[in-house]
Amino acid sequence: MPTTQLGLMNPDELAAEHEKQTEAYRALQARGLALDLTRGKPSPEQLDLASELLTLPGADFRDGSGTDCRNYGGLQGLPELRAIFGELLSIPVANLVAGNNASLEIMHDLVVWALLHGTVDSVRPWSQEPVVRFLCPSPGYDRHFAITESVGIEMIPVRMNPDGPDVAEVERLLSADPQIKGMWCVPNYANPTGAVYSDEVVRALATMPAAAPDFRLFWDNAYAVHPLGEAFPPAYDVLGMADEAGHPNRPYVFASTSKVTFAGAGVSFLGASTANLDWYLSHFGKKSIGPDKLNQLRHLRFFGDADGVRAHMAKHREILAPKFALVQEILEDRLGASKVASWTEPTGGYFVSLDVLEGTAARTIALAKDAGIALTAAGSAFPYKQDPEDKNIRLAPSFPSTDELAAAMDGVATCVLLAATEKLRG
Amino acid sequence: MPTTQLGLMNPDELAAEHEKQTEAYRALQARGLALDLTRGKPSPEQLDLASELLTLPGADFRDGSGTDCRNYGGLQGLPELRAIFGELLSIPVANLVAGNNASLEIMHDLVVWALLHGTVDSVRPWSQEPVVRFLCPSPGYDRHFAITESVGIEMIPVRMNPDGPDVAEVERLLSADPQIKGMWCVPNYANPTGAVYSDEVVRALATMPAAAPDFRLFWDNAYAVHPLGEAFPPAYDVLGMADEAGHPNRPYVFASTSKVTFAGAGVSFLGASTANLDWYLSHFGKKSIGPDKLNQLRHLRFFGDADGVRAHMAKHREILAPKFALVQEILEDRLGASKVASWTEPTGGYFVSLDVLEGTAARTIALAKDAGIALTAAGSAFPYKQDPEDKNIRLAPSFPSTDELAAAMDGVATCVLLAATEKLRG
Ligand SMILES: Cc1ncc(COP(=O)(O)O)c(C=O)c1O
Ligand SMILES: Cc1ncc(COP(=O)(O)O)c(C=O)c1O
Repeated sequence: MPTTQLGLMNPDELAAEHEKQTEAYRALQARGLALDLTRGKPSPEQLDLASELLTLPGADFRDGSGTDCRNYGGLQGLPELRAIFGELLSIPVANLVAGNNASLEIMHDLVVWALLHGTVDSVRPWSQEPVVRFLCPSPGYDRHFAITESVGIEMIPVRMNPDGPDVAEVERLLSADPQIKGMWCVPNYANPTGAVYSDEVVRALATMPAAAPDFRLFWDNAYAVHPLGEAFPPAYDVLGMADEAGHPNRPYVFASTSKVTFAGAGVSFLGASTANLDWYLSHFGKKSIGPDKLNQLRHLRFFGDADGVRAHMAKHREILAPKFALVQEILEDRLGASKVASWTEPTGGYFVSLDVLEGTAARTIALAKDAGIALTAAGSAFPYKQDPEDKNIRLAPSFPSTDELAAAMDGVATCVLLAATEKLRG
Repeated sequence: MPTTQLGLMNPDELAAEHEKQTEAYRALQARGLALDLTRGKPSPEQLDLASELLTLPGADFRDGSGTDCRNYGGLQGLPELRAIFGELLSIPVANLVAGNNASLEIMHDLVVWALLHGTVDSVRPWSQEPVVRFLCPSPGYDRHFAITESVGIEMIPVRMNPDGPDVAEVERLLSADPQIKGMWCVPNYANPTGAVYSDEVVRALATMPAAAPDFRLFWDNAYAVHPLGEAFPPAYDVLGMADEAGHPNRPYVFASTSKVTFAGAGVSFLGASTANLDWYLSHFGKKSIGPDKLNQLRHLRFFGDADGVRAHMAKHREILAPKFALVQEILEDRLGASKVASWTEPTGGYFVSLDVLEGTAARTIALAKDAGIALTAAGSAFPYKQDPEDKNIRLAPSFPSTDELAAAMDGVATCVLLAATEKLRG
């Protein structure tokens, strides 16, 4: 029986396979698709789950403490909403800020203020350091890397394992280099691999020695309540762990409801030590009289309590889980036997990370584009958009309908195989 | 007939006056007031005017172009809402951005990005300049000065006239000093004097030569549609004027609906040249996937068109105008004859600027505080909170009820007179 593994084929078998995939690709192009797997956007069906928000808060514009949410003030955000997310994130309500519509904005501000002013533990503003470096578990989130790149922070890729970043590598780098001031982390259902950091990894990152006293974990818990199965991921008390180890100001914890209610019209959160929050609010108070409390009130009314959030996320799961299952099915079906690709099987979050034959990711993405399937640009998940092995492709299955997703994934598989046969034929 | 002018009194008359005011002050304290004239906050009655917003946008979450406002994207904000405010601000819709809930945030970002990256006309980031200076018409808005102070920008006070900043002084400074990179301006109903910049002043600021090619007018048109009378102020085309004079990138125009709909839950705007906006959006895109479009949609539905905004502002006027008239009446009645104080008579905006006897503003504010009347901290309206003559007090009549305002203003007058007699007696 002839092999199904492209890597084991002889030249004739490869030529035949290439011919077959070329034909499949021509057929794909002939379908005139216009599909998009680029960004982790909720689908309209998911957004419909929060329709009630569209007429909230209703006539009563006061929160439980009597604050008129229509007027200025309240830098830290509504206490009741902070209590809900404090419970979900294992953060004391006093250590949580509720902000505007984008947690990215808070991350960006924290980087910028560290550059201009230094953190509470810095001896000088980061901009006065000879160089500032960030550890970047890779593949990772392109918008994280865009923030650090835009301000000239040097990014050091760190290997991602299924249980989080390689802590041995992190510890080696961190203990030796006082210019490493930060690290991007997505502890639950990491973008794009879906990795869930283990207890050990979280503890190691929170507690390990760092040469820089002002080293910061940018702990982006964007998918804190986004499992694809029944069980919610553990919400480790990373602030507490760091505090006990003598690094109280190390973690900056982020979250938002962008993928809970409405993307770009939700509420963001920052959790941190009291010293960090005082520092944050003193700077935030220079650029704002306060966050949009009415949108916070809307969310408070909509959720009610932490269980309200959990119940709401179960509805998302019902929509998302079949899509993620479909992706696995098509990848296995179309690519399994070829052994030129591997992919993650996330238990939550918004992405699947697909590794194709080395040196063929950019070609695969270009082929897909010419067949009307938009994929995230090659290299996006790496610092400076440089995928060292040109093999990673981020797939975002949430937005398309099931039919569109099936068509897109089938097309992607064709492109993966065509690019691989091209490459193997040399 | 004995004089009523404190400055003309002989020692006996002054002693008697001092005795009288001391007694009045004791009576004031005995009232046990708890009133606040510190901040320009809309009153609950004003906020009620926008109650409809509390249940908007309603089931239809799409703007006129079909954009689903519940999802990510649309960095520049909703075109239809930009069209409304473009008309009101005399800014082409393509040159206007609609943002989140605070125009201060945009101002802050623009300063910070100029420091980190330089503007489109800068030869280097401002942070690499030996010194960066801003012109600060004074008295002015404390939160403007707080932004520049917090990042170490040197602030140069400039005299405020009734028709705007002293342009001769501005031109002299600006043409000589390439380190002057910016100027804070509130062209309509300036905070706190209420001055409306004249056509000549606007044109002079937009067109005059500046030693720095990257000089920027931070043109904060926060009160663009906030007259106390029937006539709206002219909306000068400051972008066009600057462009014609060869300074297309000089003005950054700001506005927001904080004092149109809800304070801190409205929509902000930035108007600027195409080059400036491209630059702005490229940086904004690093910290956000887009502004809160649902809140923009709410505002679009609420206003309908520019006339909808004008009609809405007429309702604010009906509430505000009597309060401002009351302030004038009490000031005239209680302080007119004494000739120790002068004050502005704004035709719009949120503030009255009260000048008391030189060297007595801080004392007046302290006396008021001890009588339960909170006034903006002494010096607030000046760079570094330094009122060189210790005479300026900003009054914010919008928030209190009419009765509270009457009580507070009467109390303030007593404090002004007591502080003046203390001072004059030496
Ligand atoms: C890891 C991660 N963090 C943050 C965000 C964006 O969050 P926000 O909408 O709160 O700015 C995303 C969106 O895809 C994400 O994947
Ligand atoms: C001159 C001026 N600009 C800006 C603001 C604040 O605007 P926003 O609420 O849009 O940040 C105020 C508020 O008092 C103001 O007086």
